[in-house]
Amino acid sequence: MFDLENIQDPSFIKNLKYKELKELCKEIRTFLIENISRTGGHLSSNLGVVEITVAMYYVFDPLKDKLLFDVGHQSYVHKILTGRAKDFKNLRQYGGISGYIKRSESKYDIWESGHSSTSISAMSGILFTDKDENKKVISLIGDSSISNGIAMEGLNYLGQTNDKRAIIILNDNKMGISKSVGALSKAFSKLRGSGFVRGLKTVLTKISPRFICRWFHQLKRGIKGFIQQDNIFEDMGFDYYGPYDGNDLKMTIKLLKRVKEAKSPVVLHLHTKKGKGYKPSEEDKSGNFHGVEPFDIATGKPLNNCDDYISYSQIVSNYLVNKREKEEFTVITPAMKSGAKLDEFSEKYPESFVDVGIAEEHAAVMSAGIALSNKKVVLLMYSTFAQRAYDEILNDIARSNYNVIIGIDRSGIVGEDGETHQGLYDVSMFEAMPNMTILMPRNDKEIVGLFNYAFKLNGPVAIRYPRGKILKEDLNYDFETNLNWEILNEGNKLIVISYGPDLERLNKIIKDNNFDCMLIDAKSIRPMDEDMLHKLFNMNKEMLVIEQLVSSGTLYHHILEFKELNKYSSNVIKHSFGSDTIIPHGKISDIYDHFDFSDESLKNVISEVLK
Amino acid sequence: MFDLENIQDPSFIKNLKYKELKELCKEIRTFLIENISRTGGHLSSNLGVVEITVAMYYVFDPLKDKLLFDVGHQSYVHKILTGRAKDFKNLRQYGGISGYIKRSESKYDIWESGHSSTSISAMSGILFTDKDENKKVISLIGDSSISNGIAMEGLNYLGQTNDKRAIIILNDNKMGISKSVGALSKAFSKLRGSGFVRGLKTVLTKISPRFICRWFHQLKRGIKGFIQQDNIFEDMGFDYYGPYDGNDLKMTIKLLKRVKEAKSPVVLHLHTKKGKGYKPSEEDKSGNFHGVEPFDIATGKPLNNCDDYISYSQIVSNYLVNKREKEEFTVITPAMKSGAKLDEFSEKYPESFVDVGIAEEHAAVMSAGIALSNKKVVLLMYSTFAQRAYDEILNDIARSNYNVIIGIDRSGIVGEDGETHQGLYDVSMFEAMPNMTILMPRNDKEIVGLFNYAFKLNGPVAIRYPRGKILKEDLNYDFETNLNWEILNEGNKLIVISYGPDLERLNKIIKDNNFDCMLIDAKSIRPMDEDMLHKLFNMNKEMLVIEQLVSSGTLYHHILEFKELNKYSSNVIKHSFGSDTIIPHGKISDIYDHFDFSDESLKNVISEVLK
Repeated sequence: MFDLENIQDPSFIKNLKYKELKELCKEIRTFLIENISRTGGHLSSNLGVVEITVAMYYVFDPLKDKLLFDVGHQSYVHKILTGRAKDFKNLRQYGGISGYIKRSESKYDIWESGHSSTSISAMSGILFTDKDENKKVISLIGDSSISNGIAMEGLNYLGQTNDKRAIIILNDNKMGISKSVGALSKAFSKLRGSGFVRGLKTVLTKISPRFICRWFHQLKRGIKGFIQQDNIFEDMGFDYYGPYDGNDLKMTIKLLKRVKEAKSPVVLHLHTKKGKGYKPSEEDKSGNFHGVEPFDIATGKPLNNCDDYISYSQIVSNYLVNKREKEEFTVITPAMKSGAKLDEFSEKYPESFVDVGIAEEHAAVMSAGIALSNKKVVLLMYSTFAQRAYDEILNDIARSNYNVIIGIDRSGIVGEDGETHQGLYDVSMFEAMPNMTILMPRNDKEIVGLFNYAFKLNGPVAIRYPRGKILKEDLNYDFETNLNWEILNEGNKLIVISYGPDLERLNKIIKDNNFDCMLIDAKSIRPMDEDMLHKLFNMNKEMLVIEQLVSSGTLYHHILEFKELNKYSSNVIKHSFGSDTIIPHGKISDIYDHFDFSDESLKNVISEVLK
Repeated sequence: MFDLENIQDPSFIKNLKYKELKELCKEIRTFLIENISRTGGHLSSNLGVVEITVAMYYVFDPLKDKLLFDVGHQSYVHKILTGRAKDFKNLRQYGGISGYIKRSESKYDIWESGHSSTSISAMSGILFTDKDENKKVISLIGDSSISNGIAMEGLNYLGQTNDKRAIIILNDNKMGISKSVGALSKAFSKLRGSGFVRGLKTVLTKISPRFICRWFHQLKRGIKGFIQQDNIFEDMGFDYYGPYDGNDLKMTIKLLKRVKEAKSPVVLHLHTKKGKGYKPSEEDKSGNFHGVEPFDIATGKPLNNCDDYISYSQIVSNYLVNKREKEEFTVITPAMKSGAKLDEFSEKYPESFVDVGIAEEHAAVMSAGIALSNKKVVLLMYSTFAQRAYDEILNDIARSNYNVIIGIDRSGIVGEDGETHQGLYDVSMFEAMPNMTILMPRNDKEIVGLFNYAFKLNGPVAIRYPRGKILKEDLNYDFETNLNWEILNEGNKLIVISYGPDLERLNKIIKDNNFDCMLIDAKSIRPMDEDMLHKLFNMNKEMLVIEQLVSSGTLYHHILEFKELNKYSSNVIKHSFGSDTIIPHGKISDIYDHFDFSDESLKNVISEVLK
């Protein structure tokens, strides 16, 4: 029995015997399932890499070598081994440990990686700047992450350096967040080979002493021209080992020891089972156990039974299914099929659905390629990932004025994923782009209304909606709305302007407190409703603009510009996040508490201004 | 003799005999050299693809099939063949034809591509939406462009579609803008094979009737497991043909006819000579003939002898060479070695210099990987290409607060490259990013001063400078400056605030016209000099903020916010470009004329406000 919560540092691993290491893996798995079932978090990816991570710590020296975890959400085992098991009760909670790599948490956390596929480029920089021959740099990266553009750029760079200190462990679970897509995924399957050959190779590697294995590998390379094909990694200059079973601890240790002595940059291709050790997650094909809410271990079902509630993602998805029954259009998403709740759409309309994998740039340009011939296309991505396609949205969609509807999911505070995932930049991005319309609905009905509007619009439009759920209700999918701002509450002392579901909270706050406030639904962030703005400024009241955004290039600034151009005098006050603000992980409600967006805070902000 | 200027449409090509086609190529080459020597433009890339483009029009039906040109600057031959030779006298001039693909110019212009590497994703969209079995979609893409992340994402998607209508012509000139870098480039070299094998293959293909070639190709694939290795394209699901000589017209036609009938997506790998047919450009290894100013055909020397003038890029480059003599740091650039004038630096300090090729995302993250261990790094890129690394600069540099100095070359109006290349978005991008300092020097001395400041700063800093030249002068490389805004001219009636070299023009305009204006050098766009702003607002004068930017998230908006927060009352007027403005190609001076940034316009703007 290991006392995981009392691990101080990972040095103890070096002294363990194989049996103990195996026991350690088992206990880590139990720990992960028990803890994540209580806190929620990334389950499957971490269950898959238990043996690999333990082997990495067994074989490498984590204070000399550098261990990088691509997309930090596969770093839980690493966190346990480096003394943070005791902190798992507050995993992803406000003030608790992050669900990603965080340099301020531990000296063992080297590379912060919220967005996928950056570790090979980071490794390139680390190797470039520290030439110590004895230091290895190891990146653990998934099969979906490695097919993203930046990872390919990284491989392209690193392969030609011939730097033997570079070790890439390709964690191939054939899944990504849901199932892996794309040609590389196919190529990996080919590499996986037949079960028989794989089995034979595994057995041979297991029973052969090290020097024979090395000799075998060299022989293999030597005669490969005749009997074996080069693969994509070898084409790019890497020494390739694989595929092997990455859940086989003994094997993985043996392989890591071997690649540690490689004479070129290495790709070690390990096959793992995503979700391994917990039946519901092993059997999950659609990614439900990738990121989970607290769940019941016995059944695998979420603890919070929210049958009465529905997520904004699901509302959009239901809308699209309904819309597609009536007219043709395509939905494109970069690996967000499960996250954006597109399972039903993809099953009903496979011919109108593309999940391109983790490839935001490609998704944006492919959308433009479809829109080119006046076909409608809906590009669904999270706000934070849209950042990866800034140039393509700007040049290939907005500048070109194509009819692409960009659904921006998880706008605003996203909660537990934390600082690299907050959706606080998209308005600033889109505000600078020509032809762009930016909308944010305040509720399910307005989601329908604004999407219906967007489908008729010529030109690009971004429709933002947040993470979170609201009460389920029957919707009239034919509802249409225009972009005129709406008065949600009449009042005389102050004009509050906002957009999105915050409006529902604000409306309640204003009514509950009998605030003498006008409340405006600025559903169209761009273009602004200038007629309404003239009316509002002519009322000569103070205005309060409330936005869940980093404060640069937002509605507030464009209202200020409008005021200035038209020489109005009303004070315009902003309530948003400063542009130097970095918002950490935690429940959305906790973030609201700490960053002045709770109901209480909003009430105080309004009553403060009313004074 | 062909009358190129009287070509109406490309249909005439279909009726030409081989000899005539060859003559056509020759005349096109002469036409290109003569015209580009007068107007400037992209020379080498277009000289390299003469035969390929002619062959594309000979083999495909440009109104049924779709011909895409990745990075439109290799589309001149296409423009000539589609009836635009007569317009070359105004190539890249204001109101003249674009140097890139432009849908409004011609029905033969399908895919607008200012930035590289998008054509495979665009092709994916086109094929997805139009299922007509007879329509081929062909992309001509260079070896450097295909190694960019988005192109790799596109290949990854397209390879698994198994769509036989997809044809990628890989134009491999081993050059990119200057010399190609990276593992893929090495892999392509390997594909190129030995001269003997290549020669043999070429001869065999030439002399064999078509069915034998096809059979040979099939046989080759069949026995490849034993005698030939898969390559990276085959790994990704493409049928691969190559490499062949793409300047051999007969061969290229034969190959295009063959790939037209391929049963899978195809990569046809053609080897071309960049700059072919003009000795100075054939011999150019550093990319000087990639994009040229008007030049003398006999000598290859630029017509405008500007020995007394020096570009801002060169000033920065000279500064870096000098600085590197005194302290260690790394310069990273994504394929801008020649554009950013880094030849001298890279030759003197090869160990401190990395050109990663067209890989902006990788360049940004690799910079962060270096900065991780507190090593200084300068990331040099054009403003327009920085858009490709928005997410990486935001998350991996700014959020992480690393000491990366980002040199933003070609900020503001860039001139002849036109709408996809204008540097009008970077301030808006960086203003939203945490920890980011944004600077713009007004002259060579301030370049030195602000870079010296940046080298001492903790945290990320973007230093912008424009395209263009100024009078050369001796510089004191030890000059340092702080971020305090400077008063360049005293005056009482109006306060003009700007930054960058526009200030020098404004100063002259104000002095020449005896305008009673204060002129402020806001060299630090972020953070603003708040002490100075308080002083200025307390003067109660009108303010005019002049910025060569699209108007969203700019200094003007942050000054408005400052005014609002501090309840000042001075009018603040902006002079910039509207956020729906798309600025076309043309000489910078012509753009200034048409978009109110000429000396005359600026004079009028000021005198208008003074009234």
